[in-house]
Amino acid sequence: MSSGFFKDIQKVTYKGPDSKDPLSFRFYDPDRMVMGKRMADHLRFAVAYWHSFAWPGSDPFGGQTFDRPWFRGDDMEHAKLKAEVAFELFTLLGVPFFTFHDRDIAPEGKTLAESNRNVREIADIFAKKIDETGVRLLWGTANLFSNRRFMAGAATNPDPDLFIYAAAQVKNVLEITHELGGENYVLWGGREGYETLLNTDMGRELDQLGRFLTMVVEHKNKIGFKGQILIEPKPKEPTKHQYDFDVASIYGMLQRYGLENEVKTNLEQNHAILAGHSFQHEIHLANALGLFGSLDINRGDDLLGWDTDQFAMNVPEMTLAFYEILKAGGFTSGGMNFDAKIRRQSIDPEDLLYAHVGSMDAIARGLEGAAKMLEEGDLKSFVDERYSGWDSGIGQEILKGEKSLDDLAKYVEEKNLDPQPKSGRQEYLESMVNRYS
Amino acid sequence: MSSGFFKDIQKVTYKGPDSKDPLSFRFYDPDRMVMGKRMADHLRFAVAYWHSFAWPGSDPFGGQTFDRPWFRGDDMEHAKLKAEVAFELFTLLGVPFFTFHDRDIAPEGKTLAESNRNVREIADIFAKKIDETGVRLLWGTANLFSNRRFMAGAATNPDPDLFIYAAAQVKNVLEITHELGGENYVLWGGREGYETLLNTDMGRELDQLGRFLTMVVEHKNKIGFKGQILIEPKPKEPTKHQYDFDVASIYGMLQRYGLENEVKTNLEQNHAILAGHSFQHEIHLANALGLFGSLDINRGDDLLGWDTDQFAMNVPEMTLAFYEILKAGGFTSGGMNFDAKIRRQSIDPEDLLYAHVGSMDAIARGLEGAAKMLEEGDLKSFVDERYSGWDSGIGQEILKGEKSLDDLAKYVEEKNLDPQPKSGRQEYLESMVNRYS
Amino acid sequence: MSSGFFKDIQKVTYKGPDSKDPLSFRFYDPDRMVMGKRMADHLRFAVAYWHSFAWPGSDPFGGQTFDRPWFRGDDMEHAKLKAEVAFELFTLLGVPFFTFHDRDIAPEGKTLAESNRNVREIADIFAKKIDETGVRLLWGTANLFSNRRFMAGAATNPDPDLFIYAAAQVKNVLEITHELGGENYVLWGGREGYETLLNTDMGRELDQLGRFLTMVVEHKNKIGFKGQILIEPKPKEPTKHQYDFDVASIYGMLQRYGLENEVKTNLEQNHAILAGHSFQHEIHLANALGLFGSLDINRGDDLLGWDTDQFAMNVPEMTLAFYEILKAGGFTSGGMNFDAKIRRQSIDPEDLLYAHVGSMDAIARGLEGAAKMLEEGDLKSFVDERYSGWDSGIGQEILKGEKSLDDLAKYVEEKNLDPQPKSGRQEYLESMVNRYS
Amino acid sequence: MSSGFFKDIQKVTYKGPDSKDPLSFRFYDPDRMVMGKRMADHLRFAVAYWHSFAWPGSDPFGGQTFDRPWFRGDDMEHAKLKAEVAFELFTLLGVPFFTFHDRDIAPEGKTLAESNRNVREIADIFAKKIDETGVRLLWGTANLFSNRRFMAGAATNPDPDLFIYAAAQVKNVLEITHELGGENYVLWGGREGYETLLNTDMGRELDQLGRFLTMVVEHKNKIGFKGQILIEPKPKEPTKHQYDFDVASIYGMLQRYGLENEVKTNLEQNHAILAGHSFQHEIHLANALGLFGSLDINRGDDLLGWDTDQFAMNVPEMTLAFYEILKAGGFTSGGMNFDAKIRRQSIDPEDLLYAHVGSMDAIARGLEGAAKMLEEGDLKSFVDERYSGWDSGIGQEILKGEKSLDDLAKYVEEKNLDPQPKSGRQEYLESMVNRYS
Repeated sequence: MSSGFFKDIQKVTYKGPDSKDPLSFRFYDPDRMVMGKRMADHLRFAVAYWHSFAWPGSDPFGGQTFDRPWFRGDDMEHAKLKAEVAFELFTLLGVPFFTFHDRDIAPEGKTLAESNRNVREIADIFAKKIDETGVRLLWGTANLFSNRRFMAGAATNPDPDLFIYAAAQVKNVLEITHELGGENYVLWGGREGYETLLNTDMGRELDQLGRFLTMVVEHKNKIGFKGQILIEPKPKEPTKHQYDFDVASIYGMLQRYGLENEVKTNLEQNHAILAGHSFQHEIHLANALGLFGSLDINRGDDLLGWDTDQFAMNVPEMTLAFYEILKAGGFTSGGMNFDAKIRRQSIDPEDLLYAHVGSMDAIARGLEGAAKMLEEGDLKSFVDERYSGWDSGIGQEILKGEKSLDDLAKYVEEKNLDPQPKSGRQEYLESMVNRYS
Repeated sequence: MSSGFFKDIQKVTYKGPDSKDPLSFRFYDPDRMVMGKRMADHLRFAVAYWHSFAWPGSDPFGGQTFDRPWFRGDDMEHAKLKAEVAFELFTLLGVPFFTFHDRDIAPEGKTLAESNRNVREIADIFAKKIDETGVRLLWGTANLFSNRRFMAGAATNPDPDLFIYAAAQVKNVLEITHELGGENYVLWGGREGYETLLNTDMGRELDQLGRFLTMVVEHKNKIGFKGQILIEPKPKEPTKHQYDFDVASIYGMLQRYGLENEVKTNLEQNHAILAGHSFQHEIHLANALGLFGSLDINRGDDLLGWDTDQFAMNVPEMTLAFYEILKAGGFTSGGMNFDAKIRRQSIDPEDLLYAHVGSMDAIARGLEGAAKMLEEGDLKSFVDERYSGWDSGIGQEILKGEKSLDDLAKYVEEKNLDPQPKSGRQEYLESMVNRYS
Repeated sequence: MSSGFFKDIQKVTYKGPDSKDPLSFRFYDPDRMVMGKRMADHLRFAVAYWHSFAWPGSDPFGGQTFDRPWFRGDDMEHAKLKAEVAFELFTLLGVPFFTFHDRDIAPEGKTLAESNRNVREIADIFAKKIDETGVRLLWGTANLFSNRRFMAGAATNPDPDLFIYAAAQVKNVLEITHELGGENYVLWGGREGYETLLNTDMGRELDQLGRFLTMVVEHKNKIGFKGQILIEPKPKEPTKHQYDFDVASIYGMLQRYGLENEVKTNLEQNHAILAGHSFQHEIHLANALGLFGSLDINRGDDLLGWDTDQFAMNVPEMTLAFYEILKAGGFTSGGMNFDAKIRRQSIDPEDLLYAHVGSMDAIARGLEGAAKMLEEGDLKSFVDERYSGWDSGIGQEILKGEKSLDDLAKYVEEKNLDPQPKSGRQEYLESMVNRYS
Repeated sequence: MSSGFFKDIQKVTYKGPDSKDPLSFRFYDPDRMVMGKRMADHLRFAVAYWHSFAWPGSDPFGGQTFDRPWFRGDDMEHAKLKAEVAFELFTLLGVPFFTFHDRDIAPEGKTLAESNRNVREIADIFAKKIDETGVRLLWGTANLFSNRRFMAGAATNPDPDLFIYAAAQVKNVLEITHELGGENYVLWGGREGYETLLNTDMGRELDQLGRFLTMVVEHKNKIGFKGQILIEPKPKEPTKHQYDFDVASIYGMLQRYGLENEVKTNLEQNHAILAGHSFQHEIHLANALGLFGSLDINRGDDLLGWDTDQFAMNVPEMTLAFYEILKAGGFTSGGMNFDAKIRRQSIDPEDLLYAHVGSMDAIARGLEGAAKMLEEGDLKSFVDERYSGWDSGIGQEILKGEKSLDDLAKYVEEKNLDPQPKSGRQEYLESMVNRYS
């Protein structure tokens, strides 16, 4: 029954912190209760079709390193084999979700109609697999960046025909995502930016992009899809500059087009650091602005300037990231999608397992630390106390708009105000946080 | 009559491109007409009090290198000497404008009231100097970052007393700027950000900042100041993260607090590159979003990660920057403020002249190139043509919101749409642009 | 006779600075004398087979965009067509040189023997073309990075079999380069580094690399190849870290293995900036250390963290780069190889021309500026004067090793030494340099 | 008897991992045996005079924030108070070592002779304190960067008088370090580089630097100082470029001047990342090249481009750093010097304690993890096995220089060699390493 790809590998189980078996979980224990919720329900892990099954191991200086049976042909037979193996991995890992781009799962046809039919045919297989395995769809998305036709963008292409083509492609995947019970629909605008300002009109392109997003939201409502529309910030690569630079930029864009209540963000660690922000910052800000949706979980190399998409193994960083999530109430429709590639030298099937297992464990440790940190409450109390002057009195009056510059100048004079700085206690807090990771 | 600081240096005059006299202009010829306007009126140069007269040449690893007479005491007498020399420099260079922070021009007093009085006393001297010399005030601003009281921010301080103190300080400088006929008022929030997220609540701080900006706008209207309120983007340094990260972030923040028609931006090359953007990008985007106000003109080192604030000598970059400005109609209230420091090893009075003269010339060359580029029109025609599909037909229908995803999917099918990519011609355009610099 | 690929494009000729024809030279005038040498002999331009004929326009997020006839099959017929078109481009541009990697010119065979035969068969065609056209070989090199076998390095592979395989491949290309009259042989160790220190022993790998380089030098001598062996610094990408990080690192490595008189460097602008250095710095330092060999001429994007390999269009930077070269006496065996890719959106055959023509012009302007700067001598005089204290007296005694710390401490005391700093004149010099670009 | 600065703070003691007392150690337990050695003897912690007692909390945009009694005057009385408090901190923390720059401990005089006398007077106090407390001197150094006289460098100054002055200053501190029983002498060449290549001759400056280092080594031998001479790599800041860029550069420089057996390196995490390297990389490479000496222990911000010098709190990074140290046999004369600044907002005396205690704990955890990792041996075995092909047979023959390119080409042919890549197992190893931190 099995494809045989994973040979003798057994379902990965929890064996506790002392386990040295690299194919066991040391921390991820799906049914363990953390803050009144199952660990699995907190983390909502999803395996990404793209990185684990579609990427061949190439880089800009070298070609395919992964010798996968499904790479031997670009046809429906091989696509079906890939789907088979994908669900085997989902099951071995025990993850509750998966995600996909349309072009990952089925070959491109001669026309868009044929391509769409191919995607639908595999989606039918997914529907059965979902039934059989219980693994659900976290989100689907359309690949509007790999084919050369999109080289100058999809929604932001100077040629409206590309916008139209992209719209038709998105419609297909949005509908399929709806039919498969997907909990979100994601847009990543990998080519929605520019290579050189010399040939670009940003004002025009932003308006095009605003219109595109609006149409997606309208269509979602028309077909009754209740999932969340998500947009994924990334500052650059493949582009020189991408419109969805970071959470703050997206917030401005959504407001410009009246979409701030319709669209949320799908945040990625590696994209955050390419934009000059920490992962924690992007989550914190998205929560502050009401834009937090879901996570693409991975890790960039702090010293490299491109999207390395490594598996997240960094426990302290995951702890702080999850602290922000728990503080804001946890995921609703979102989850943690492994938008991460095993290194191109990790060529064995086992490597796919080592990577996911190691990262799930690192993140589970992060969750536990974050939960404990929130439950003990020392960090939160410190911050609340630090701002407490704003909760009443003159602080509240200012925030409510009851004071003018003249009022405040008078206040300084009357009180002979000479405010003294207080220690920010950064090292104290950093050391405190180390108690939890 | 003269302070003697600049000894035998004469007023700098235009001597033409072949001049080898480093104290002459080779390109900056104030009365020369470019696109129907005097060069001086295009460029609107301003000398910055801060960098040229207040900075002592220190860096994080070493102290003062500049041996200026006015550094020998922190009192009103020395402040007056400084003012004397400043206007001598403005006059030697023939710049039409200057700019200042309150703390640059007068010593801090024991109370805010005393500090404000000191500032006002020097402002009275400025008023006379403005009359005598014709040099005008481009903008004033309050320094809300140097004093230790502001170490955790001004408007975004966790302690409301700091907000209040800052408000009273801004009121004073805003009113003085108004009285001196300043054309703009600038806010640079050098500490409006965070050092560590561990002790920070961004949502709270953003609301505080929104309230502060609103109060400034309200006070401006109350006192009848017709100048433009400007906010200056910078991503970091001295902070780990600053709320005014870049133009796109500021746009979102201004919209959030309903200020997008009240406040514009003061853009700086070095701040742009610290945020991961080109200077041209920030100007282009500010124009697209209606936020372009003024420039802090300088140059960062592309290979260093801090704000080096060097004098702009980079002709090709200035050409493209000015192309964006001219394309959008040129400066209104804004101008080009030399937010640039001579290197700490440039310790002689002459170095202040060499730097300004060299940079004014580089920028004047940029203006000439940009004007020619716009007049010849090859670049603009290329871009307009590239997007022309959006100017009518289906392009316009999409932009007007007359089409849905269903419509577009049908369009693909009916037209059997298979759009082909067109060359972006980057090298052709880069080579074309080289004709102008 | 022609392949028809370049259709009606004619040989590019010099038409002078006012030409608006993008397929003419405005500055590059091969026979024009500059400092007593033909411009062509100063610049020694070479077109790179790799970027212009082998790269398909792919990036990490998208596939081939260039629709070249020779991409339609990976066989000898298509390789021959590619060679045909390549020499057509060389001739249209009038460049004196070309360069190649073995894998660019001929398909990989089933065995190394077959691969080597394929390379040799195309090399025979090259030999004829060289005779016919007068275009010469600047250098050849072996591609030891694209094939998956080299994923963990060639000389630095943990498996000696890869070292051996690589050695046999290099032997073939070195001999062919010799036979074709190549003036240099280049090694670029794109995988000679590590992805993770966790699985790496740098000491071992450095020794392997030292041994490899030594064998190449020995074989060069054995076969009587008089060309220069060059090694190309790059800090990272595709690797996390590469042993040939920059000029300073290579100097250390060459000394470690006694090769500092045998091997020189092939420097690239984009690699320099990835290492945190300016291009001028790397050339200056290579000259100071006796390691300057040749240039891979291109331009990186200062704001992107990967190797964009754009065509060099940056006149001021090229001026300073060439100033360093001229000051040290100009190229001997080296030249300027266009290690530059047209953007993936520049899909038309014309784009290959626009790019090379625009860049040749920008560099020719740089050469002219640099030559004038050197001839007028103001910059050089300033620098010589600045260090003149070291040319005699106590300065010379120190450099000759005739003084001890005790002597110098006594000198301070006796002379009551209190040395005063002198202005470094950075802005004066920057402005002076602007006279030449 | 006490200065009263630290008020009621008691000596910090080990209270175990569950302690929530921020002024107790959770992991650092000096007498605990790890791999047969006391923890204190492994770690050899030193408190730095500079960061903890001389830095006033300023940054480029703001002045002093720390209100320390000894900042109230720049005279010997205040210097003595500072020394008093410094030894109180050393004692409260229980660290075995301290370090200093001459200018940190005593005010600069009107002449070098007076400055040297001031330094010596405080050194005499140190001698007594060392006797009383048992705290020893890890290293001393001369500050050749803060005073404006050194703005263009010390050894590499274009003016030989500065070289001479610097030499005399070093002589004094080197001798004092010797007298105080210092275990090393450090040179950090913060201005030994350039601001602009336009006024710089790197070849000359390198020769000057080589001569300077040689004189220091000669003097050390002359006076019988048995400590280690250390040089500290840093790529930039305050300079645009520093000659001691990184370990690899220093190796080349030391070889050039025949000093590779005389001088070792003092490595810093923040300097490593500014150079584009991980801390682990620099330690690993220094060990491979025989240059490992000592550590300046701190932490840079991966997203900021300047030297933030934060206290190291990053357990996983410290674990890997210490793994490299232990693998190579541990410290000899070196130690871990806290070259780290409390944040400028951490203005209370307690913050000095929180910072050191938190960082000592994080590093002690790192040591424990590293020791366990080395003792269990899984990582080391993996790496040894990976390279085992080089330990015998053809691998050894190659390394011994017994094979030529011809031999290896023949070997490929005879064996029909077609080497297959093996998985690099990066995620497996990353996950394994997570077991230890």
